[in-house]
Amino acid sequence: MAKSMKALRFTGGELKLADVGRPAAEGEALVRVTRSGICNTDVEIVRGYAGFEGTIGHEFVGVVEESLESPGLVGKRVVGEINVGCGTCERCRKGDARHCPQRTVLGIKGRNGAHAEFLTLPVRNLVEVPGNVPDEQAVFVEPLAAAFGITEQVEVGPETSVAVIGDGKLGLLCAFAMSLRTKNLIIVGKHEEKLELGESRDIEAVWLPTIGKFEPVFDVVIEASGSESGFATALDMVKPRGKIVLKSTFSGKPQWEAWRVVVDEITIVGSRCGRFEPALRLLEEGKIDLSDMISAEMPLSKGVEAMAEAQKKGVMKVLLSM
Amino acid sequence: MAKSMKALRFTGGELKLADVGRPAAEGEALVRVTRSGICNTDVEIVRGYAGFEGTIGHEFVGVVEESLESPGLVGKRVVGEINVGCGTCERCRKGDARHCPQRTVLGIKGRNGAHAEFLTLPVRNLVEVPGNVPDEQAVFVEPLAAAFGITEQVEVGPETSVAVIGDGKLGLLCAFAMSLRTKNLIIVGKHEEKLELGESRDIEAVWLPTIGKFEPVFDVVIEASGSESGFATALDMVKPRGKIVLKSTFSGKPQWEAWRVVVDEITIVGSRCGRFEPALRLLEEGKIDLSDMISAEMPLSKGVEAMAEAQKKGVMKVLLSM
Repeated sequence: MAKSMKALRFTGGELKLADVGRPAAEGEALVRVTRSGICNTDVEIVRGYAGFEGTIGHEFVGVVEESLESPGLVGKRVVGEINVGCGTCERCRKGDARHCPQRTVLGIKGRNGAHAEFLTLPVRNLVEVPGNVPDEQAVFVEPLAAAFGITEQVEVGPETSVAVIGDGKLGLLCAFAMSLRTKNLIIVGKHEEKLELGESRDIEAVWLPTIGKFEPVFDVVIEASGSESGFATALDMVKPRGKIVLKSTFSGKPQWEAWRVVVDEITIVGSRCGRFEPALRLLEEGKIDLSDMISAEMPLSKGVEAMAEAQKKGVMKVLLSM
Repeated sequence: MAKSMKALRFTGGELKLADVGRPAAEGEALVRVTRSGICNTDVEIVRGYAGFEGTIGHEFVGVVEESLESPGLVGKRVVGEINVGCGTCERCRKGDARHCPQRTVLGIKGRNGAHAEFLTLPVRNLVEVPGNVPDEQAVFVEPLAAAFGITEQVEVGPETSVAVIGDGKLGLLCAFAMSLRTKNLIIVGKHEEKLELGESRDIEAVWLPTIGKFEPVFDVVIEASGSESGFATALDMVKPRGKIVLKSTFSGKPQWEAWRVVVDEITIVGSRCGRFEPALRLLEEGKIDLSDMISAEMPLSKGVEAMAEAQKKGVMKVLLSM
């Protein structure tokens, strides 16, 4: 008889904690999840974005329970890249599973996710966590990689002036990551208590309601607010020939002044995920400490309540422990 | 008594040919215009775009009549870069007058233009035309530079697959410029007779009404249609991690699916003007022949009629001769 497990599932328009069968490894590694993190994407899925049904969650740390392919991995503490490519298409052959048209994505697209006692992922997606990085930090690797991944797409050096729009989790992680490259940095947001997390790291914080009009003086503007007005604000802040990095996905169709992008010869860079290795190194070397980003840690059995908690005003990261 | 001249002017919401005083050089070079080209931007100005009032026109070739600063230029045949910076701000000091916040632009912003018997421009804006490039080709330097300028912003090599959206003058010039870099090229448009200008240069032409749905297979998509739907088509055609070059300005605020740009990590590059020198070299070396792009040549005295002609269906470039 198959063993069962608890999982936080979104099915038939309803979020609930369910008892389901433990997944079979079937050519992948079976991972016992120890902690998972609730992301805004989880919240958007529960609102119907992306049409996903199944176990939600994609930020996790866990221990390999079973791997026929790499028995040496069993017992190792791992995090996992969330995109699983088909392995045979042109993009996969170039090592870019992230953009495989047939990809599944952990807890987001065609694959059960991490808010569960167990998950499976291909061995190639797993990255071992260094011993000195505690679970509570390792669980941030996925969003931190997404934030630090900006530096792979856009050059940011000590002379680069950077503005981050949005003081939510993603915006703050982007600002923390950028602060390792330049001190010429501001974060703009609407929540004073969240901006303090930037200020405590010597990042200049600008409270949006105090600003009349921005001047177009920044080399790079990172839009991480997830709001429709964020892009217009980014256009107001970026220099001619500067770059706007779009980090947040939202399902609307905002209007934009495309002519300004042409006249000022702006470059807009869409940016989604990043590589795990550099993000893990930042945590291993203590260059980034995310302990004050955690608002609450709750057991998986309280998963539905934890999702509600994560949506409350002023709440940062909510972790689930298994 | 100041000498007078004819000029095609847009003032008080009205386009008319007027007798005005010949401009004083005042620290700039005085150029006797021999031919000018009517651009879609001229048409948009007459529709009220950009709020410009004065002599319109920014594509020209002429002969230097007077230059206190560089007397050796007198009698030389020249074309001219259209952006005139303040010369003292940070951007001007970096050699980027195009994005000077105080700039004037010939016939577009704060400066009388080229559909006139005379114009003035700073000596630094003028570029001498090689003897073997006739006026009828030299007058295309400004838009050709804008098209070829794409290669300064986006890498295009023999392996790069490129699609150009739009079969108007700008789209065709972009396609001609790209065809010097890659044979992996298509031009997409709605006008069979215009697409033939691409086909005659061995560029694969795709007639939009025959296409059901595009596949996202192009490395670079150049939006030069000037229509609101152009950007959506570009998003349908571009590969994940590919680039969309926005060339056309239009004053609306189109909607866009920003989330697709993030998920597929697309880069959007706004592109307006280009350097004249490389474009002149293309004409000098005979790599591009634009003679079949001219639909009509009319005298300046028929300027109002020429503007009407330029807006007729199927008409390509209309030149004015002085």
